[in-house]
Amino acid sequence: VFRPFPSPKALFRRTTFIPARRLARHLGFPITLVTETFQETGSFAIRAADHIVANVSAPFLITTSSGNFGRALAYACLVRKKSCIVVAPSTCPTRRVQAIREYYGQIEFVDLRLKSLDERVNELTREFRGAHVTSPDDPLAIQGVASLGREIASLKRTFERVVVPLGSGALASGIVLGLRDSGNKSFVIGAEPLAANDAARSFKAGEIVPNETEPETIADGARNVRLGRCAWPILYRSLFDIVEVPEEQIAEAMRLLFNFANLKAEPTGALGLAAVLSEPQLFRDCSVCCVVSGANVCPALYQSILVES
Amino acid sequence: VFRPFPSPKALFRRTTFIPARRLARHLGFPITLVTETFQETGSFAIRAADHIVANVSAPFLITTSSGNFGRALAYACLVRKKSCIVVAPSTCPTRRVQAIREYYGQIEFVDLRLKSLDERVNELTREFRGAHVTSPDDPLAIQGVASLGREIASLKRTFERVVVPLGSGALASGIVLGLRDSGNKSFVIGAEPLAANDAARSFKAGEIVPNETEPETIADGARNVRLGRCAWPILYRSLFDIVEVPEEQIAEAMRLLFNFANLKAEPTGALGLAAVLSEPQLFRDCSVCCVVSGANVCPALYQSILVES
Repeated sequence: VFRPFPSPKALFRRTTFIPARRLARHLGFPITLVTETFQETGSFAIRAADHIVANVSAPFLITTSSGNFGRALAYACLVRKKSCIVVAPSTCPTRRVQAIREYYGQIEFVDLRLKSLDERVNELTREFRGAHVTSPDDPLAIQGVASLGREIASLKRTFERVVVPLGSGALASGIVLGLRDSGNKSFVIGAEPLAANDAARSFKAGEIVPNETEPETIADGARNVRLGRCAWPILYRSLFDIVEVPEEQIAEAMRLLFNFANLKAEPTGALGLAAVLSEPQLFRDCSVCCVVSGANVCPALYQSILVES
Repeated sequence: VFRPFPSPKALFRRTTFIPARRLARHLGFPITLVTETFQETGSFAIRAADHIVANVSAPFLITTSSGNFGRALAYACLVRKKSCIVVAPSTCPTRRVQAIREYYGQIEFVDLRLKSLDERVNELTREFRGAHVTSPDDPLAIQGVASLGREIASLKRTFERVVVPLGSGALASGIVLGLRDSGNKSFVIGAEPLAANDAARSFKAGEIVPNETEPETIADGARNVRLGRCAWPILYRSLFDIVEVPEEQIAEAMRLLFNFANLKAEPTGALGLAAVLSEPQLFRDCSVCCVVSGANVCPALYQSILVES
């Protein structure tokens, strides 16, 4: 009998380590890729979503995150026999809608001229009593991502730098927690788009500073307006540095991953390598662990990036 | 100290298993990808080349294979402190030349209007006494590839079908040997381009039947004129079937690997999945192991294939 979906135990896989020696020679220092692109939903977000779905008692979940997190939430709910609604703008790209519906997730479209996503979520929570409203900044999400930090720590070799894409902060904070849980003291560096540099500005200010509007960057996983409130204290305490990456370096990193490591990455997934390209002095003479968070990218965009050089 | 090349022990990595559930749902039966695309030289050929270089006493090797095998041979020689010459047509594409020179392999160009590759090899063997002339059909090459068959056999689950790209036959025969060594009796199916169907014709004839000329297929790893003499008896005895794959299915398989499994594959690497698309009745209701042999593809060709649909 062919079972199209796995058991809850096999919902996500251990990460994939790739010692990328060709890339290392190009850069001049050793680099190991840690790629989450072979997870069923194409990104690390399944670790976050699954930990939430498995650990809340509510049979019904609501989120406003229609990207990798919403997709992963729909998948985790399907496998764990729960339900979810993803509340999304009516302008949500078809690809994202399809990705959520692939796992039978429901989508509630909101015309943002009439009400905000949060207003609609509030209405829904009144309608569905006991529903769990969640986001990548759910404390359970961060705990879920910690498994990736523990997997990195379980490698025999230690890394002097672990460089991680930075959006709302769930990935970076989860990895920090997982590394520290395991007694690993590698320096963790966040990589965010220069065009969405709220994290770097928050660090300078010592408090969460939002972007004025949704930032314009090809790294769509880092278009969040502000760092998450749960991620923030972990990041502020533990991140060694934040690199602000120009858009052109993100594209170049995607090309290098394709050409030197045979790896498909989404723009957000390539932020870590882009940070290495942008500020090599932070990584020189170090052994670097570079986290590639996902590969969900529109084929036309990917092609257009490959073409340039 | 940054060592740009590994020790001989770390010259190749264990293969990467990807349970490709999204692809499985698309096809209607379970499929596990076994991908060699994250080897340093981008293909399984490093297993073949390394086993040769490690096991011949000659410090100097000669081959006429300028593709994945020549590249892997140069790499294995570099790491194991031997030397090699790749004898190639003067029309050899720049990408291939660069890939060999990346590992300091020497290339000897031959103007095919003046002499054949084999004539030049004969001259070189007189010049370099004791050199080992090798090819993917070297018995040591096939023994080297057997490690991949053993790795597949080492998975706890058994597969009813193992589908493998078929060019000169080194990969398929090595996998068969490795599986059988381990007591594994999975049916192994070869996948070759319809435009280069010498293996299928050889099977019907019961003897090696060559292509008349170098076949025109995008699967450049299967453009060999004939099956290898060492691979042939193993294949003839052990292959369950051979699927002849139309060119369009090769391209479609590359797109499916990209879109449903986030995997970059070269055309030859996608032959296994292309066979599944071409003759689904051979795989229906079976658990399928699909070997993706490599990812060395010209970016422009890859893009042009992604664009179509």
